[in-house]
Amino acid sequence: MKMWYVEKGPDSDVVLSSRVRLARNFSEYPFPHKTTPEMQQEIADKTKNALFAGSENMKDVFKYIDFSNLDIIEKAVLVEKHIVSKELVEADRIRGLLISSDEQISIMINEEDHLRIQCLVSGMQLSKAWEICNNIDDLLSESIDFAWDENIGYLTSCPTNIGTAIRASVMMHLPALTMTGYIKPVLEATGKLGVAVRGMYGENTEASGNMFQFSNQVTLGKSESDIILGIKNIAQQIIEQERILRQEILKKNRYELEDKIFRSYGILKNARLIDTGETLKRLSDVRLGIDMGIIDGIDITDINEIMLMIQPGGLQKRTGRLLKANERDCFRAELIREMINKQKQ
Amino acid sequence: MKMWYVEKGPDSDVVLSSRVRLARNFSEYPFPHKTTPEMQQEIADKTKNALFAGSENMKDVFKYIDFSNLDIIEKAVLVEKHIVSKELVEADRIRGLLISSDEQISIMINEEDHLRIQCLVSGMQLSKAWEICNNIDDLLSESIDFAWDENIGYLTSCPTNIGTAIRASVMMHLPALTMTGYIKPVLEATGKLGVAVRGMYGENTEASGNMFQFSNQVTLGKSESDIILGIKNIAQQIIEQERILRQEILKKNRYELEDKIFRSYGILKNARLIDTGETLKRLSDVRLGIDMGIIDGIDITDINEIMLMIQPGGLQKRTGRLLKANERDCFRAELIREMINKQKQ
Repeated sequence: MKMWYVEKGPDSDVVLSSRVRLARNFSEYPFPHKTTPEMQQEIADKTKNALFAGSENMKDVFKYIDFSNLDIIEKAVLVEKHIVSKELVEADRIRGLLISSDEQISIMINEEDHLRIQCLVSGMQLSKAWEICNNIDDLLSESIDFAWDENIGYLTSCPTNIGTAIRASVMMHLPALTMTGYIKPVLEATGKLGVAVRGMYGENTEASGNMFQFSNQVTLGKSESDIILGIKNIAQQIIEQERILRQEILKKNRYELEDKIFRSYGILKNARLIDTGETLKRLSDVRLGIDMGIIDGIDITDINEIMLMIQPGGLQKRTGRLLKANERDCFRAELIREMINKQKQ
Repeated sequence: MKMWYVEKGPDSDVVLSSRVRLARNFSEYPFPHKTTPEMQQEIADKTKNALFAGSENMKDVFKYIDFSNLDIIEKAVLVEKHIVSKELVEADRIRGLLISSDEQISIMINEEDHLRIQCLVSGMQLSKAWEICNNIDDLLSESIDFAWDENIGYLTSCPTNIGTAIRASVMMHLPALTMTGYIKPVLEATGKLGVAVRGMYGENTEASGNMFQFSNQVTLGKSESDIILGIKNIAQQIIEQERILRQEILKKNRYELEDKIFRSYGILKNARLIDTGETLKRLSDVRLGIDMGIIDGIDITDINEIMLMIQPGGLQKRTGRLLKANERDCFRAELIREMINKQKQ
């Protein structure tokens, strides 16, 4: 099965992935922090049954994971892949996860809300992600009565999600906006338009590797399609600005740009110790080099794969044991060399 | 003809080259700064004749260059190769150069002294260099009456060279002593023993690329052999200390050392812009990597060749025109990539 992140989506020179997430709660149970273990188990069972009741096919595509049984490394990998939230990992409840074999669709059970339905797609494909989530939501609604109010919409554990309970986000690679400093006015403007900006790993994380996640702040008083359209329009403008700046840098500082890109490439191909922060920075340069036709022999989807595998959890899953920070730096460097040199053959 | 610097001499893991230089003056002429152009021409002619009178063979091995006719790039290349001094380039006199085809032996004419006889050999071979200089000196003495005083020895333009008029020096690569900070006590101790330390390009130059030139300060009151022996003994001790420290670093910080070395290798193989200072630093790391068996596929003699070719004069000779500083950085990076990638095939 090919994972979603090794596909190359539309506008992949700037947009890594699009994501839609819906929050849903059973009407007959209190919000998760008030549920008993028995209720939590029932919620998990009912969700599983609702999904698998749809068709025989669903059982081939989706698997159910009893999240509480996963070890610390498996949990970390799922967080790094953006399949589950840190909240799910940390919650002191019976938790479940339904996940499609390409890891594109997932349903977290007993997170902050009873259900979080999520779809992740490569490139700029928000409408596709929304459509997939919507289908899953429709299917589940056939057997589950979700908490819903005629005036408000979907009820959620945290009031910031109430209404549509939708969060649509786009992960963008913005090296030219960052290099030139134009990222600052862009972030200020998007903030005023009700768009939240985060780093690669959610709230309070810095924009490592020049990656920025843009998502809607408001979930109430607008339709899902309007919310999706709003994010799409803003993203499209940022994409254009990023592209124009890349060409300007190429025109004015070609050698400096090529030097920066190739040095990072050379370091990734040769380092024996490298931490996550530096890796993301170097990968950002190489990604830009590929997108601008400066580097060839390596593909963007390989960079996507490396970005996932070099996270602490990904590394530890590969070595099969917990690693100290300096051991991780060593294995990370080894893994990157292996993956980059593989591409050259 | 193979140049001396592409040979691999004894102790080449620490010692790049050994050099002996003798200062000589004609007894019948005043010191160079007091000579007329006619005298300068006579000195050049007489030296040429004295060398070529020795045997027919000498005409095949040596060529005479009218230094005053060289262009600025050719002069810079000779300085970078340590064949001539900056003083010779800058002197406002008729100047000549006799040079052997392997560039090992050279005689500067009308520099600070009438003659400067020099021999450069790879690795730790001071005795060999001295022997060669001595033979040239004997040959010239057959037809030239050198200024010599029974009590003092050879008379020289500057009193610091008087007596033996010999300068014996060893160029050493000391990355481990530098990294660990032990270079400081070493330099203090050698200073007390009458040994001068300089960077790669003579007085007042910093030790770029961890290269240190050790030479005798005193030329008076000792025999040539004693001076050579003194430098040899000190060099031998420094070689041993450097080797011990390299092994200690390898033992205690293998990954950090390998990382440093391979990163520099990766940058040299990939950079698009690089200045001389950084190049020498990176080459020092790669040289250490080769000497310690960490890098293979490239030889020390290749590094020696790159070190010469990346200097401003070497670069400009190759491109056939004067280059601006940023153009040099670009051509330098290109040349290094070409030379390093050549080695891999």
